[in-house]
Amino acid sequence: MKRKSMDGAECPVARALDVIGDWWTLLIVRDAFDGIRRFGAFQRNLGISKGILAGRLKALEEADILRPEAPEDGGAHSDYVLTEKGRGLFTVIVGLRQWGEAHCFKPGEAHSVLVEKANGQPVGPLILRDAAGVPVDASSTEVRKVGA
Amino acid sequence: MKRKSMDGAECPVARALDVIGDWWTLLIVRDAFDGIRRFGAFQRNLGISKGILAGRLKALEEADILRPEAPEDGGAHSDYVLTEKGRGLFTVIVGLRQWGEAHCFKPGEAHSVLVEKANGQPVGPLILRDAAGVPVDASSTEVRKVGA
Repeated sequence: MKRKSMDGAECPVARALDVIGDWWTLLIVRDAFDGIRRFGAFQRNLGISKGILAGRLKALEEADILRPEAPEDGGAHSDYVLTEKGRGLFTVIVGLRQWGEAHCFKPGEAHSVLVEKANGQPVGPLILRDAAGVPVDASSTEVRKVGA
Repeated sequence: MKRKSMDGAECPVARALDVIGDWWTLLIVRDAFDGIRRFGAFQRNLGISKGILAGRLKALEEADILRPEAPEDGGAHSDYVLTEKGRGLFTVIVGLRQWGEAHCFKPGEAHSVLVEKANGQPVGPLILRDAAGVPVDASSTEVRKVGA
């Protein structure tokens, strides 16, 4: 479906989704966080066609989220690694992960877990806090529009 | 584009995107957090066709993210409000917002801001922490697959 571009929107959520609001895009970014960098490895892990994958990788390169690198094996396709802007999506991916863990599995159903490399312990929940460190949520916050 | 369903995936990110991995879906959820509840208000704010909006609202209702309520004005369409599962997406929306703020605007370009209702102060950044409260990031964490 052709979607309406929001690249002039004043809402940062809309701008962000204008760049990454696509199913495959965020799964490619997720895989890049997991250390995948080769074209064939993305393709196998996602079960995606070469054409769609090549298109999404090109869009992610143009958006400065992934950066091509010479392939380790001298193959036909570039490798891809996250840029600093791409690494900034870590919080989005973790937010999706924690919501999925809480709401998309049956009790006791197995799922992958994000752990600390140093000790194998699961990470804590993402919590939004105010400037003083006190947790805040949707009911205690609101969006202030431009000019308001 | 018909997408591959990931509803059997072991990765919570994939499961989450299977439910909400769609441009319009997250913008509807964003609007619901901003207090929009009427069909016509979603439509005007998103610039979306009635047919597409009705389809997305139905999918969000089936996914237990939005709950229909009798319309305040007795109109033809239900109002829609976030369920508890829907309100759990707050962190995802805020993560998208903060990434958009950091990477999708020119310096000095105006954008909306998430503030505390009580004092109008902008909220702090989402930070992932370990069980002891120490910040962790992509380089200090890894995904442990099921059975690993």
